[in-house]
Amino acid sequence: MKFFNDLADFEAAEINDLVAFARDLDQRPQPRALEGKVLALLFLSPSLRTLASFQSAMTRLGGGVFVISPDMSIHSIEARSGIVMDGAAAEHIREAIPVIASYSDAIGIRAFAKRERLSYDLEDSEFRAMTSLVDVPYINMESAINHPCQSLADWKTMDDLGIGTHGNRFVLSWSWHPQPMPMAIPAATVHMAALRGMDVTVLRPQGYQLPGTIMARAQEAARASGGTVTETADRDEAMQDAQVLYVNSWTSQHHYGDARAEEDFKHELRYWLVDEPWFSPSKKNCYFMHALPARREVTVTDRILDGPRSVVIPEARNRMLVQMAVLHRMLSES
Amino acid sequence: MKFFNDLADFEAAEINDLVAFARDLDQRPQPRALEGKVLALLFLSPSLRTLASFQSAMTRLGGGVFVISPDMSIHSIEARSGIVMDGAAAEHIREAIPVIASYSDAIGIRAFAKRERLSYDLEDSEFRAMTSLVDVPYINMESAINHPCQSLADWKTMDDLGIGTHGNRFVLSWSWHPQPMPMAIPAATVHMAALRGMDVTVLRPQGYQLPGTIMARAQEAARASGGTVTETADRDEAMQDAQVLYVNSWTSQHHYGDARAEEDFKHELRYWLVDEPWFSPSKKNCYFMHALPARREVTVTDRILDGPRSVVIPEARNRMLVQMAVLHRMLSES
Amino acid sequence: MKFFNDLADFEAAEINDLVAFARDLDQRPQPRALEGKVLALLFLSPSLRTLASFQSAMTRLGGGVFVISPDMSIHSIEARSGIVMDGAAAEHIREAIPVIASYSDAIGIRAFAKRERLSYDLEDSEFRAMTSLVDVPYINMESAINHPCQSLADWKTMDDLGIGTHGNRFVLSWSWHPQPMPMAIPAATVHMAALRGMDVTVLRPQGYQLPGTIMARAQEAARASGGTVTETADRDEAMQDAQVLYVNSWTSQHHYGDARAEEDFKHELRYWLVDEPWFSPSKKNCYFMHALPARREVTVTDRILDGPRSVVIPEARNRMLVQMAVLHRMLSES
Repeated sequence: MKFFNDLADFEAAEINDLVAFARDLDQRPQPRALEGKVLALLFLSPSLRTLASFQSAMTRLGGGVFVISPDMSIHSIEARSGIVMDGAAAEHIREAIPVIASYSDAIGIRAFAKRERLSYDLEDSEFRAMTSLVDVPYINMESAINHPCQSLADWKTMDDLGIGTHGNRFVLSWSWHPQPMPMAIPAATVHMAALRGMDVTVLRPQGYQLPGTIMARAQEAARASGGTVTETADRDEAMQDAQVLYVNSWTSQHHYGDARAEEDFKHELRYWLVDEPWFSPSKKNCYFMHALPARREVTVTDRILDGPRSVVIPEARNRMLVQMAVLHRMLSES
Repeated sequence: MKFFNDLADFEAAEINDLVAFARDLDQRPQPRALEGKVLALLFLSPSLRTLASFQSAMTRLGGGVFVISPDMSIHSIEARSGIVMDGAAAEHIREAIPVIASYSDAIGIRAFAKRERLSYDLEDSEFRAMTSLVDVPYINMESAINHPCQSLADWKTMDDLGIGTHGNRFVLSWSWHPQPMPMAIPAATVHMAALRGMDVTVLRPQGYQLPGTIMARAQEAARASGGTVTETADRDEAMQDAQVLYVNSWTSQHHYGDARAEEDFKHELRYWLVDEPWFSPSKKNCYFMHALPARREVTVTDRILDGPRSVVIPEARNRMLVQMAVLHRMLSES
Repeated sequence: MKFFNDLADFEAAEINDLVAFARDLDQRPQPRALEGKVLALLFLSPSLRTLASFQSAMTRLGGGVFVISPDMSIHSIEARSGIVMDGAAAEHIREAIPVIASYSDAIGIRAFAKRERLSYDLEDSEFRAMTSLVDVPYINMESAINHPCQSLADWKTMDDLGIGTHGNRFVLSWSWHPQPMPMAIPAATVHMAALRGMDVTVLRPQGYQLPGTIMARAQEAARASGGTVTETADRDEAMQDAQVLYVNSWTSQHHYGDARAEEDFKHELRYWLVDEPWFSPSKKNCYFMHALPARREVTVTDRILDGPRSVVIPEARNRMLVQMAVLHRMLSES
């Protein structure tokens, strides 16, 4: 495996194989599989689960990591092209990334959306510019518009819960959040559920439609898998017999890059807070999923997050397990 | 071993066995004992010895660690219950801790005393709340009121020096410090020396008596071990034939949570600075112990810290060795 | 090997042996050579290549590292002697360094020049004070006046490129930089090239002569190796048939410790920016070397850094490889 950037790069059988391998590595440890192998972790955005789960994954397989983050004791890093570097930044990403990669057998990169121009983020321009500088295998640890490690963990989480694929209803709901959040998780999630062949509904208020390119990509995946993708602002309709309510926050495409305008726009949407009444239209045992971190009593109530519907902890643990499978496939033959 | 939280949870024979095992691991390395095993280190308070010694301990045993600290490039963490999370903190400890634990085979947690309400800290309420969220083995890396890794290292340090148990005099002295310091080390230390059966004297100015619950717990340990625990403000009396002078600073229970009041109160106590004349009442070869960091010329003079009485460097190294013993017992069978 | 502090401590044959061993370790991994061994990395100055390359080097050899930096979640560290520590710093380097060393099998220390008094930095006083506190093998990860890991990597880089020793022209050029930079790299570099027996020219504007002690040391090395060391402000003369242009910035000895005065002095030297016309006097295939980080369009143009003359990425990767050789020699027998 030369890169792990997008679930769309894999056949469903390959995804199922990775999930099965993750389960196997959980039960039958391979503590020498990657001995002497090094994973570089480059964080241009903050992290907890990703930082911890990748370190743990490499240790469990006998390898190691090093972590580079501009917050650490390094020179600040410039990313713009053609710049005259006479300011604070001492290092350009055009050297930093190939150098870091040259010390590693694979590199994981996290770089959130800039949230300035929508088209720039939708095309994942920054992430592509960075991976073009790398000649070792790379892993997308969340880019402007994708988060394949989260999606693979979510896929395994649903398998673990016995939630099937075709004909099973998956609801991705927007939720209120005090800040304008990126679209990586909703874009990755709607696509992942569509790839599984589920009946996917995006539930969101007016103004929070996902961009057309994201929806079109998910619908194309659904056509191939036998699933469906629809969207609605009607909560009861969306939640009808839902088996999963997956919650995330994202910024409005209509106010992209304008935090003030969005704040005004979403001012009256604070009631969009997930709580028990949301689940009543479903006659199924509907689970609550969230990639974390989740803002308590803002995005979701304590009683949901701490209650029996929530699977957020095993969902987070699956990050580590599926990443072990990816790393093993990527590095054990190299 | 399911947790390492308090020396009181162990019989003296078990403590002696851990110390002997630490010595053995120092002489006969076991670099594959914990291969593939992961220790999570969660620091909610700053650290140097703990951070370094646990990483080194795991590496020497063939395992690995990951470190999580709110100072790192992660989302800031909320700890209060029932909070509406619409401020800066993006993550709640109720998810963060179980997630971190789920990536690990054991977790070490450091969380200093809040120093707001004495009873809250004496009950170790915050630490207990955190460990209640964890279902892997855990290690207390210093909580509001305990520091068992330091105490086990101190136990080994005295054994290494040939300082006996019954009938040997151990002095724990308060010292001046510019800040209001927690009671974890004095509470753990007086209890540790009492568990050994030593004749323990707490030397402190008026107003710096240790809280009754701490003294009662130490006296109970002394009754079982055949030792004694007393306190005094008289330095010459305390130091009479002392074999160890163990120094630490702690806040006054009478001004707990009120830094300004304590500053006024201790204003005239700056002379309480350990120096050579302190040792003259002892006819024994009296050692100077300190858990570090020590404030030079404030808590102790350079000539003591750099002189032959000081055992602070081997004492600090023993942190690593006893932690190796604890980690091996905790993780090698799991 | 008890320390790695200065290439001058080694015979040319020993240096060539380390370079050959580095190449061998690149081709024939030894992922268990240092199992259970711990390298402490103490950074008192920022780092990217050093931080990453040492971590990767130890992982590839089966050992591990821990990193200590005052920027991390530790108590701030005091370095002055005889100080009354009643301010912010809770820890003194006289305890911190021996404690850190006591947890490790070897320690790497990085501490940039103070850039206050020239003689203090030229004598490497701070670094010597720190290593005097250590009784394990140590590595100079860049001190006030030396950078042996960089020099050994540069030596290997020239060998890899087939650039010979005697009679081959090596140009070390000053370049403009917005800040007053230390002299560790120019001092180490001119000495390294002289040790190889190359014909070394230091190219710099008036006022940026390297201090006499640095030049004298390089000239002594050249006498022993059969090389030469000269200096000039004439670019065309310097670049005549050069095979390597090695670029770095350093502060003027005449304004040492006075950033304002130097800023005024170098104001008219901004044109000292490496670009293609520099290379025309050389009829050889002249390479561009730089230790990184390099300030684009300030120190060197994009087209040189991104063009075929630049070897900065393999030069940086050689840091990891030669450090593996040093660490293996230092730790595998211990």
